[in-house]
Amino acid sequence: MNVWDEIKTRSVDGIDGLVTVVVQDEKTNEVLMLAYANRIALEKTTETGLAHYFSTSRKKIWLKGESSGNTQNVSEILIDCDMDAVIYRVSQKGGACHKGYRTCFYRKIQDGKTVEVEEKLFNPDEIYGKK
Amino acid sequence: MNVWDEIKTRSVDGIDGLVTVVVQDEKTNEVLMLAYANRIALEKTTETGLAHYFSTSRKKIWLKGESSGNTQNVSEILIDCDMDAVIYRVSQKGGACHKGYRTCFYRKIQDGKTVEVEEKLFNPDEIYGKK
Repeated sequence: MNVWDEIKTRSVDGIDGLVTVVVQDEKTNEVLMLAYANRIALEKTTETGLAHYFSTSRKKIWLKGESSGNTQNVSEILIDCDMDAVIYRVSQKGGACHKGYRTCFYRKIQDGKTVEVEEKLFNPDEIYGKK
Repeated sequence: MNVWDEIKTRSVDGIDGLVTVVVQDEKTNEVLMLAYANRIALEKTTETGLAHYFSTSRKKIWLKGESSGNTQNVSEILIDCDMDAVIYRVSQKGGACHKGYRTCFYRKIQDGKTVEVEEKLFNPDEIYGKK
């Protein structure tokens, strides 16, 4: 039996068959982003070594870096006790965040407000094009 | 306006009002577990400095360590670009995992199977009682 037969998927915003993916820098352990994967995305990630997800907004499989070039080489996949969440340990090209930061978690909460704790790496308009 | 007024919650397995919480060791950056919080859990965490969650199985607010004593002191809360996920940076007492490991992510995926990469810290039967 393959491990993907044993995963316990969840329904997120009405979309079935998802596991949560925590994306972690393989060297620093920094958490870069959080996303979702379905079985196809997990299999594509394993086969290609490049992080694939299921986009809950676009409702389709998504190769991270497809448009930005900021791909993620996945060296290891960890799975949790409940088998409903995985960690992709990655080498991140450029920044993970579509807003131009290395990590999507570039702000902390302080006194009920958000405060930036990371500097911007790139201008998202230049990478993704103006919207 | 408070930051909790701006969060974008999701519906997980039919339960509304949830954000995903990644729990990270404040010293090593190790990811210890993944859980969910609603607004009340986030506010209780901020007020008490102890990690609170919303249990999707028991459908109630949950103070981590309530039965095991393995509490989590939260030193910082980070929030992601989409405001639908947070990181609790914690000092973990004992192990985070109810199966007796420091982290819930104690296995990696290799050749379609799970392989343990962490050693057990404690016997869960002694902490939680036999089930």
